[in-house]
Amino acid sequence: MINSLRGIFLEMNRLNDVDYMKLAIQAARHGQGCTYTNPMVGAVIVKDNQILATGYHKQFGANHAEIDTLNNLKSIDQAQGATMYVTLEPCSHFGETPPCCRRIVGVGIHKVVIGQKDPNPVVHENGIRFLREHHVEVVMTSLSKDVRNINQFYNFYFENQRPFITLKYASTLDGKLNQIENQRSIITGHEALKDANQIRQNYQAILIGEHTLKIDNPALTVRNDTNIKYPPVRILLVNNASSIVDSQIVNDKQAPVLILCHENDCEIKNNNVEVVEGRWTPERITSFLNEKGIQSILVEGGSRVQSDFIQAGLVDRVINYISPKLWGGQSLPVAYSKMDKLVELNFRIEDVQQIESDLKITADRQEVPHV
Amino acid sequence: MINSLRGIFLEMNRLNDVDYMKLAIQAARHGQGCTYTNPMVGAVIVKDNQILATGYHKQFGANHAEIDTLNNLKSIDQAQGATMYVTLEPCSHFGETPPCCRRIVGVGIHKVVIGQKDPNPVVHENGIRFLREHHVEVVMTSLSKDVRNINQFYNFYFENQRPFITLKYASTLDGKLNQIENQRSIITGHEALKDANQIRQNYQAILIGEHTLKIDNPALTVRNDTNIKYPPVRILLVNNASSIVDSQIVNDKQAPVLILCHENDCEIKNNNVEVVEGRWTPERITSFLNEKGIQSILVEGGSRVQSDFIQAGLVDRVINYISPKLWGGQSLPVAYSKMDKLVELNFRIEDVQQIESDLKITADRQEVPHV
Repeated sequence: MINSLRGIFLEMNRLNDVDYMKLAIQAARHGQGCTYTNPMVGAVIVKDNQILATGYHKQFGANHAEIDTLNNLKSIDQAQGATMYVTLEPCSHFGETPPCCRRIVGVGIHKVVIGQKDPNPVVHENGIRFLREHHVEVVMTSLSKDVRNINQFYNFYFENQRPFITLKYASTLDGKLNQIENQRSIITGHEALKDANQIRQNYQAILIGEHTLKIDNPALTVRNDTNIKYPPVRILLVNNASSIVDSQIVNDKQAPVLILCHENDCEIKNNNVEVVEGRWTPERITSFLNEKGIQSILVEGGSRVQSDFIQAGLVDRVINYISPKLWGGQSLPVAYSKMDKLVELNFRIEDVQQIESDLKITADRQEVPHV
Repeated sequence: MINSLRGIFLEMNRLNDVDYMKLAIQAARHGQGCTYTNPMVGAVIVKDNQILATGYHKQFGANHAEIDTLNNLKSIDQAQGATMYVTLEPCSHFGETPPCCRRIVGVGIHKVVIGQKDPNPVVHENGIRFLREHHVEVVMTSLSKDVRNINQFYNFYFENQRPFITLKYASTLDGKLNQIENQRSIITGHEALKDANQIRQNYQAILIGEHTLKIDNPALTVRNDTNIKYPPVRILLVNNASSIVDSQIVNDKQAPVLILCHENDCEIKNNNVEVVEGRWTPERITSFLNEKGIQSILVEGGSRVQSDFIQAGLVDRVINYISPKLWGGQSLPVAYSKMDKLVELNFRIEDVQQIESDLKITADRQEVPHV
C-alpha cells in the first residue's frame, strides 16, 4: 500500500514531454534579437527523467540549438540513448553550420521530440525524414501554439511568402495623427513613446514615407542599453532620393538604410545606404522585401502610407497608442488618402494596456490574405 | 474582562455613519430614470443603532426621500430623537411638495447626517441653516464622491451653469465613422449597438446634425423592456426645418423633439415638436438648453457636429465604441470639419470594456471649463 502510494507520488512529480518542451521554449527565447534572420530555437536533453543539458541558438552563424545543447553535456557519451526536445525541426542541410540531424544520429540520440516543423522549404520535413531513416524515433508535441509564437514572423514569412506587416501609430481619441500641418505633434506620454521605440527591435525593417521623414526627422533606431546586433533596416519611401540626401537618417550610419524612390538624381556613397528606383506600391514593396529575405516590417506612417497599406490589404497587426485627447477641426486623420477602394480589413483585439494616461491597443488580422 | 471584550465586540459590529449613508445611497439609486429633472435622493432613519426605515424619491412630483422615509416608520412617534441619514441636503422651500425641513423638525428628528449640499441655489445651504436654527444637529459625511456620483449631471448642471455634454460614437480602429458617402455604416456588433442605445436613458437630451438625421434616419429612442418615464428630448440641428418635416423622428410621437434650425419655412403642428430659429453654435445651443433646464446632452454626431463641439470646448465625456477594423482611403473621419482652431481637450480614461469583439472607451474631461 505504502509502496504503491509512493509510486503514484513519483509519477505525479515526474516531468513530462510538455514540461521539457516548455523548458526548451524558455531556452529558445534567450536568443531574442540575436538570431536574425534565423529563427530562435531551444533544446533540452533528457535521460532517465533527468535533464542532462539545455541549450539554444545564440546568434546567426553560431551553433544551432541542438549542437549547443550537445556541447553542454558533461560528456558526449551521455547522449547515447537519450531524448532530445527541440522547439524546431532539426536541419538536414549544410548552411552556415553542418546539419544538426547528422550529429544527432552520430551521438546516439534515440528519440527527438519536435515543437514544430520548420516552414523553411530547405528544411521542411527533410530533417524529420533523415532522423527516421536513421532509426531515431520522432514525436511532435502538442504545444504547437506556444512553440510557433517564438518565431511568429519567421513562420508567417515562410507560410505566406511575404513579410509580416505591422501598422504602428499614436493617435488622439478622435483618430488624429497631427494637429498642425508640416509640424510634428507629440501625442502620447513618455512611457508610451518608450514602448513604441522598444517595439522596433522585434522587426527587421521599419518603413516611413517622405512626409513623415521631413516632418519628424526620425532616427528610426532602437534606443536602449542593450546592444542590438541586427538593427532594423530603415526603409524610406520617397519620390526623389535627392530630396533626402542630407537628412540625418541617411548620414548617421546607425543602421542600414534602404531608399525606395521613384527617381534618383543623386549618388549616395554611404556603405549602409541602398537606393532602388521603381514605381513603388505596397504590393511591390512587400514582394521586393520578401525577395531580400525580410521577414517583418513595421510601418510607422504617415497617414497616406498607412492608407495605402490598408487599401492594399497588407496589414497583419495594428499597434495603436491612443492618447485621451480631442482635436477635431482639420487635424490630420489616421490612414487618410485620396484612394477610395472599398476595403475592410478585420482584426481581433489581442491586448489592451494602459500606459500612464495612454492606451495601447494591439489587434491581429483575422484572416491572412496571400499575395 | 469578559464584559469588556463583549463591549469591544459590540462596538466592532455596530454600523456607523458611513454604513448608514451607503444604505441611503443604495435607496437613492432605486429612483434611476424616474426623478427627472429632480435629483435621486435616498434616506435612512436610525435610533439606538436600529434602522427604523429607509426610503427614496420615487419620481418627479412624488414625495421627497425624507418624507417617503418618515412615512415608512411603523409609527411617526419613532422619529422623536432619531437620526436621519439623507444623501442630499433637505429642501426648505415649497416646490412640487412642501419643504422637507419643516417636517423633519416637526416630527422631532434630533440629528441629520447629509451626504452633500444641494447645488441648486434655491436650496443650497438654506436647508442646513433652517435645521440648525431649529436646533437639529447637522453633520456632513465623508462619502462625498460616492454621494455626488448619484447625481453627476445634476451636480454638474448647477455647479457649471450648463448641461453635461457627452460625445458618443462608434468608429473603426483607424478613426472612421462612415465608409460610403451618404450611406449609413453599421460599425460595431450587436451588443455594442445595444449598449450604445441603453446609454441614452441616462441623458435628458440627444443631439444630432442634419447629415446624420438624413443618412441614419434614427428614432433616437431607448429600446428596452422597461418604461422610460422621461425619454430624452431629441434635438435636431438642421439648416431649414422644412427639409425634415417628413422624417420619422418628427412624426413618430415617441418622445419630444426640438428642432434647432437656421430657417423655418414650414409649420409643424405636432404637439411634441418645438421649432426654434437661430444662428446655432455649440455655445448658443448649450446656453439655450441650460435655460430650458436640460442637465445633460448626448451628442451622437455626425463628424462636423462632433468637431464643432470639440472646437467650442464643450465636451465633458467621450464614449467611443471601437470596432477592430481598418478602412483607410476617403472614409469619413471622426470629428472632422473645416474649422481650424487649435484646440486640445484633455481627458482621463475612466473605463475600457470589451463588448464582443468591440472595445468601449469611456473618458472624462480633466478640467471643466466654464462658459
